[in-house]
Amino acid sequence: MAFSFSLESIFRVLGDAVRTQGDYRGQVTGISSLSAAEGGDLSFLGNPKYRSEVPASKASVLLLPADYEGVPVENQLFIHLESPSFALALICHEIERMIMPQPEPGVHPSAVIHPDAKISEEASIGPLCVVGAGAVVGAAFLESHVCIGNKAKIGDGSYLFSGVSVGAYCEIGPRNRLQSGCVIGSDGYGYEYMDGQHQRVPQIGNVVTAEAVDIGANTTVDRARFGSTYIGAGSKIDNLVQIAHNVQIGQNCLVVSQVGISGSSELGNGVVLGGQAGVVGHIKIGAGAMISAQSGVSKSVEPGAKLRGAPAMDMALAGRLIVLQRKLPNLFKRFDQLEKSIEAQLNKSTNDD
Amino acid sequence: MAFSFSLESIFRVLGDAVRTQGDYRGQVTGISSLSAAEGGDLSFLGNPKYRSEVPASKASVLLLPADYEGVPVENQLFIHLESPSFALALICHEIERMIMPQPEPGVHPSAVIHPDAKISEEASIGPLCVVGAGAVVGAAFLESHVCIGNKAKIGDGSYLFSGVSVGAYCEIGPRNRLQSGCVIGSDGYGYEYMDGQHQRVPQIGNVVTAEAVDIGANTTVDRARFGSTYIGAGSKIDNLVQIAHNVQIGQNCLVVSQVGISGSSELGNGVVLGGQAGVVGHIKIGAGAMISAQSGVSKSVEPGAKLRGAPAMDMALAGRLIVLQRKLPNLFKRFDQLEKSIEAQLNKSTNDD
Amino acid sequence: MAFSFSLESIFRVLGDAVRTQGDYRGQVTGISSLSAAEGGDLSFLGNPKYRSEVPASKASVLLLPADYEGVPVENQLFIHLESPSFALALICHEIERMIMPQPEPGVHPSAVIHPDAKISEEASIGPLCVVGAGAVVGAAFLESHVCIGNKAKIGDGSYLFSGVSVGAYCEIGPRNRLQSGCVIGSDGYGYEYMDGQHQRVPQIGNVVTAEAVDIGANTTVDRARFGSTYIGAGSKIDNLVQIAHNVQIGQNCLVVSQVGISGSSELGNGVVLGGQAGVVGHIKIGAGAMISAQSGVSKSVEPGAKLRGAPAMDMALAGRLIVLQRKLPNLFKRFDQLEKSIEAQLNKSTNDD
Repeated sequence: MAFSFSLESIFRVLGDAVRTQGDYRGQVTGISSLSAAEGGDLSFLGNPKYRSEVPASKASVLLLPADYEGVPVENQLFIHLESPSFALALICHEIERMIMPQPEPGVHPSAVIHPDAKISEEASIGPLCVVGAGAVVGAAFLESHVCIGNKAKIGDGSYLFSGVSVGAYCEIGPRNRLQSGCVIGSDGYGYEYMDGQHQRVPQIGNVVTAEAVDIGANTTVDRARFGSTYIGAGSKIDNLVQIAHNVQIGQNCLVVSQVGISGSSELGNGVVLGGQAGVVGHIKIGAGAMISAQSGVSKSVEPGAKLRGAPAMDMALAGRLIVLQRKLPNLFKRFDQLEKSIEAQLNKSTNDD
Repeated sequence: MAFSFSLESIFRVLGDAVRTQGDYRGQVTGISSLSAAEGGDLSFLGNPKYRSEVPASKASVLLLPADYEGVPVENQLFIHLESPSFALALICHEIERMIMPQPEPGVHPSAVIHPDAKISEEASIGPLCVVGAGAVVGAAFLESHVCIGNKAKIGDGSYLFSGVSVGAYCEIGPRNRLQSGCVIGSDGYGYEYMDGQHQRVPQIGNVVTAEAVDIGANTTVDRARFGSTYIGAGSKIDNLVQIAHNVQIGQNCLVVSQVGISGSSELGNGVVLGGQAGVVGHIKIGAGAMISAQSGVSKSVEPGAKLRGAPAMDMALAGRLIVLQRKLPNLFKRFDQLEKSIEAQLNKSTNDD
Repeated sequence: MAFSFSLESIFRVLGDAVRTQGDYRGQVTGISSLSAAEGGDLSFLGNPKYRSEVPASKASVLLLPADYEGVPVENQLFIHLESPSFALALICHEIERMIMPQPEPGVHPSAVIHPDAKISEEASIGPLCVVGAGAVVGAAFLESHVCIGNKAKIGDGSYLFSGVSVGAYCEIGPRNRLQSGCVIGSDGYGYEYMDGQHQRVPQIGNVVTAEAVDIGANTTVDRARFGSTYIGAGSKIDNLVQIAHNVQIGQNCLVVSQVGISGSSELGNGVVLGGQAGVVGHIKIGAGAMISAQSGVSKSVEPGAKLRGAPAMDMALAGRLIVLQRKLPNLFKRFDQLEKSIEAQLNKSTNDD
């Protein structure tokens, strides 16, 4: 993906005091790893183990550690820094701001805003969005095809990509980032079997997210049966995750793609759930616990625990079992031999008697 | 989530004959568990094991069993009932009707309705919906951004939340509830490898749902290769489920979140599939079978069977294997010791000889 | 699902030279298997094992192998062919073209097209689509509620169903088929823990798809951190799949529903990933490798390998372990017995001494 970013912009980000070597006068038109970089690219030495790749790199601009000792080739610029990775992040943020600028405030004429909705003057409501009766939208960004239900609230600085749906009464905190297609406030999956049918249990709660929550594309968060399904400050939810009704997620949790969390379960602060893991309902996962990808958590988990497997168990034990399982064919074989040799011995003993 | 529901409304739902104790004159502004309730909340004793939590509950109104013997505190109302849980459900239905009223009939001016579509006068078509040529929409509710394909049919009393897509020729039965973002009638995943490429096999069937089917947010149901992918009456599908082409689902099935059902497989009536379970193609799962979460069903299942694991096996055996697997480290150790002790014994015998 | 297709159309597809037997003069109104077919249906004998079902089939038109020797009943037409399956595919393609005709070129007046976007005169942009600034749309089909981000590109002959979102700068190749609700170009899931918070790492790359790529309903493909997330020519992605940032997918791969591929992993040409399989980040899966459903691939895979299980292992070993695991209860029992009998023997020996 090509863009055009000037050296002046880079020095504006990094400060003029950085030490440079060599000379390059063009634009930066891409970012790439040392080995994949081509002319025009910015690259970086973030991990010392790639140090040997620097001399052969075709990148035009390289972010290098202060103590890097090589020399640039012709038409190549070295920039020496305490932390090339951190410098790269700063530059990428600047490029992101340039190539994906925040939309201007205002409401697109094709958007359908209910007369009772309250929209901040700083809000940016893109084309074909719908905002329902009594909804309150702060200084937020709604891209396109976003649907905000009746009496829902969207906090300042939040960014809702195209096709996001926030259901009635749900409350999105400030500085949230909701990726395309995520559904906040779908009905909880609650039924009671009565008169030969599954009768729907009313789901009259909502979803509340605190500040700086990210929610991935096509992820679904069900509204509470009553009260609120809750996602704490700074928690980051990946794509295609299912969060059931009345789930409570603490602060700074990481929930990786395709995880499913069943109803009323609670995650303490800083919990990490690996991709495709599943969590049954009505349990507590203690703060700082880490659950491996594809695990199945079937009962409450102590804070700080590291679990793996289905059903999830201590990570070390799970690793041990994986090793031993592969030795099962041999164990069965050894066992058969042992039985035979003992039998032979017993026969022999018997004969000896 | 706060709302305001009057005591008069509650007695209208429960009938005036219910026995009460104590006095509370405000509005009910929330529903909560006994321990989490605050002033203004309605709470309930549904499960006897929480009986001891009643005296300390701060709820303003409590639904209690007829035989509950405690006394309310000041400004607190007890309502005695045969079944507090059932009473709660009735009240919640009433609150749901109040806070999420069904939209009025009519077509929003921003909706795009093909002149050949046939829309019931009782239908409610929300903003920015699209209804295709030849489609037939009964007395149904389409929230917003809903797309009804050409010649599709939507039954009376069905509710389609924002962003639902019903593909061409698909038929949604009466009183269905389709959550946001679900896709009904995507192409089946069918290819034939020919001339060095995967050639798409035409998918010219549709999806048909019977009455009272619920489909979760961002769930996908593929159209049949030919004929119909079918979901039977009263079956409830959760969020992010994949139902492949030509799958046949019986009546009153429960399919929990993130389940995947491969092409042409059949579920009998009353089948329950736990979250994240997978079902291979072209098999039959007998009526009333229950499959645990994360299981992998690789062959046909007898009616009433209870299976677990991947590949799925009898639930009791699966439980036994889980226990035994954790004993594997010990088994290997015991085996090593046994081998050694036998060897020693053999050597001894040999020496004795 | 009923439609109406004439015999003339069938002979136009198959050619007039085909040998027929019997007589049927109505329309073909459906396609069905031999056993399920009713009057008006077309059916076929694709697999010799169903040969015995032909005489009882109620289908009005049957596609049969050239050497089939039975005779049609009254009002039934046999068509003899080298390959009935191939003939069926040709007919289905023709029916698909008839019942789901490609929309006419043109931009629906309700679509919101940025003045800087460049739309081919042959493009068909359906109702309520949004095309952003600088976007380039070729001779493609956008159904409805499709969102094309700023500077994104859509190749000729591509078909985007309702509710598809293609993010800024992403590039969809020619003849792609994007099912409803798929999200191309959501943010990659990248965070660095700094100052007690997960700081978002800018995701300034895009997604690029080559020609003839299919992407399933509600599938998500994240944009690259920098550079491109890439899907190679002819690869077919099913519904609800997660493809993380910087993933590289080769040509003619098959990725079945609910698979998750973590960041920066690479698939060679012709890789097949079974449903619900998971792939960790930063690994390579060699060309032609096949991974079973629900497997967990935790390290790089050799070309042509066939793996199964979590963690994934050689398919034969995995099958062997599944068999042995079910013998564990017996093994534990045999082991207990062996220990006892040896103990008894040892005691005996001791007593003997």
